[in-house]
Amino acid sequence: MKEAGPREELERKQLFVATGVLHKKDGRVLLLKRSEDHKIFQGFWQLPEGKIEFGESPQEALNRELEEEIGRRAGSSELLGVHSGLLTIGLTIYHVIRIIFEVGWEGRVKLSKEHIRHRWVLPRRALVMRGLLPGTEEILWAVLKKGLK
Amino acid sequence: MKEAGPREELERKQLFVATGVLHKKDGRVLLLKRSEDHKIFQGFWQLPEGKIEFGESPQEALNRELEEEIGRRAGSSELLGVHSGLLTIGLTIYHVIRIIFEVGWEGRVKLSKEHIRHRWVLPRRALVMRGLLPGTEEILWAVLKKGLK
Repeated sequence: MKEAGPREELERKQLFVATGVLHKKDGRVLLLKRSEDHKIFQGFWQLPEGKIEFGESPQEALNRELEEEIGRRAGSSELLGVHSGLLTIGLTIYHVIRIIFEVGWEGRVKLSKEHIRHRWVLPRRALVMRGLLPGTEEILWAVLKKGLK
Repeated sequence: MKEAGPREELERKQLFVATGVLHKKDGRVLLLKRSEDHKIFQGFWQLPEGKIEFGESPQEALNRELEEEIGRRAGSSELLGVHSGLLTIGLTIYHVIRIIFEVGWEGRVKLSKEHIRHRWVLPRRALVMRGLLPGTEEILWAVLKKGLK
């Protein structure tokens, strides 16, 4: 990727994302390790999430992503919070706004080609993991502070 | 405004909006009547709201809009919900996603040129008002169902 020189204008893009904090009854949350199929952040750990496509509600976007990434939709989801952050990649600066849902999850996780591993981990332990996708740490802090149902 | 013919493609735009349900202790919520300064929906009643600009968090966007539209920022705000809808205007179809906050409000409202009147009204009464901006009715229903703090 090219670096932006001082005279170059960074392109600005807004990205609206639906994010799922999936959790077991014991409070562990689901993290997924990104595969080499991604153009960026290969090997990073992330929450299940993805861009809200045209016409989708945030909840629908989350369910589509869950089906794609772990093989099943959420039975129900509850709005947990919103998170906003900036991220520069190459010559583009992204304004990422995440709409975050809490989802109680039982049963197995069926990974797609997008991820190579999954882990159920307590938020306080997840916070000390290396290679968290940008933004994930702030969400885990918020989860820790607010608690899950 | 032109009408889209059957062979014409509608342009698609996503619009992310921060919306405030401002309320008094007696449960009345604030509605603003749009002035002729607007290109569209003149005279319609709306909740205070506006587009989330690049780099803003939804809360910051709401506070900027409140300052612009009614003269003061919110002391605090709490996430109330999200709402997604489609709206066709001329040759463009907008996918409007609203991030909705609840704000307790005391004191006066200082209108800008964007609005010509304001009203504090109970949600169940607001629901029967004529000329509500698209999406407003659904938000008021959600408020009525969920209640305010």
